[in-house]
Amino acid sequence: MNLNTEYTEAQREELIQRVQMQMSERRFQHVLGVEKMAVALAAKYGASEAKASIAALTHDYAKERPDDEFQMIIQRDGYDLDLLNYGNAIWHGLVGASIVQRELKINDEEILQAIRLHTTGAAEMTLLDKIIYVADYIEPGRHFPGVKEARDIALINLDEAVAYETKQTLLHLVEQEQKIYPKTIETYNHWVVERK
Amino acid sequence: MNLNTEYTEAQREELIQRVQMQMSERRFQHVLGVEKMAVALAAKYGASEAKASIAALTHDYAKERPDDEFQMIIQRDGYDLDLLNYGNAIWHGLVGASIVQRELKINDEEILQAIRLHTTGAAEMTLLDKIIYVADYIEPGRHFPGVKEARDIALINLDEAVAYETKQTLLHLVEQEQKIYPKTIETYNHWVVERK
Repeated sequence: MNLNTEYTEAQREELIQRVQMQMSERRFQHVLGVEKMAVALAAKYGASEAKASIAALTHDYAKERPDDEFQMIIQRDGYDLDLLNYGNAIWHGLVGASIVQRELKINDEEILQAIRLHTTGAAEMTLLDKIIYVADYIEPGRHFPGVKEARDIALINLDEAVAYETKQTLLHLVEQEQKIYPKTIETYNHWVVERK
Repeated sequence: MNLNTEYTEAQREELIQRVQMQMSERRFQHVLGVEKMAVALAAKYGASEAKASIAALTHDYAKERPDDEFQMIIQRDGYDLDLLNYGNAIWHGLVGASIVQRELKINDEEILQAIRLHTTGAAEMTLLDKIIYVADYIEPGRHFPGVKEARDIALINLDEAVAYETKQTLLHLVEQEQKIYPKTIETYNHWVVERK
């Protein structure tokens, strides 16, 4: 990784320790896999490797917080109250970013947005947003039908990888009869349908 | 069909003629199939057979109107302008109901709403809304994988048929990479996910 004076190896190690304390060993290994993939994608596509590392290490920081903490933040901080109709799968990114900001003193808006959007994506995504969204899906610890194709696509065309992941995720949600957050449809309409 | 003084056979014949003039023979045969199915479902589930007949006969009344007519109405009548980002598949029901009202002088709000919702469904649907939504999917002229199962379900539980149709339609749209109207997700979240 290409570190600089703003993000030293010592800072990375400290961040890793703080992240590790927040989650199971299994989830921590996933986070390290996402970091590895995100830094590789950042190098390939010309994004900041430091930001990719920080966003990847913190993207699931809030995933194991209890529901009532998210519900309190949603009501306290003026989020759309429709969010209360969803659950941890949506909250840990969208609302979790503000927990990362508050507790880890990470104020970089690019990093915070990548955390916010890592599960649902969005019609408008920055390079860093796409890297975290895709890295979360294809990190080396992921094993599901189609993950190899997703990895192959990500090495050729990042936008195509966003589209592939979005389509497969939506199919999976519908097949499993799981609730869909409306923003996921904006992501789908933009990346899968309109980008063609 | 159980007609009454408000909807005579002569009125039905006149409506059929006016509908037939608006569309291809192929679509007209589909409309007659939907009417047959809708009246049967109304009889089974205790809805007004007259309203089922009228809503079924007129549900695709506007389907062959040009895009610019819908675009003009959307802008003139204060619809959400986001509708302009969709196409005939969404407009012919949602906006077509107002064409039915204006040209056929059908002012029954129950019938107009069933026309409005026949493609997308909604989280909240009346018995008549469900009958038209399901009849459109399973009318005798439909041939696609799963239509027999949909017909079997519709004879047992109408809500279950709404859920089945919604899930299959959403899977089909995503597989075909076709644009999804956000209201379809509200229908899905309510009928497929939350009703369980």
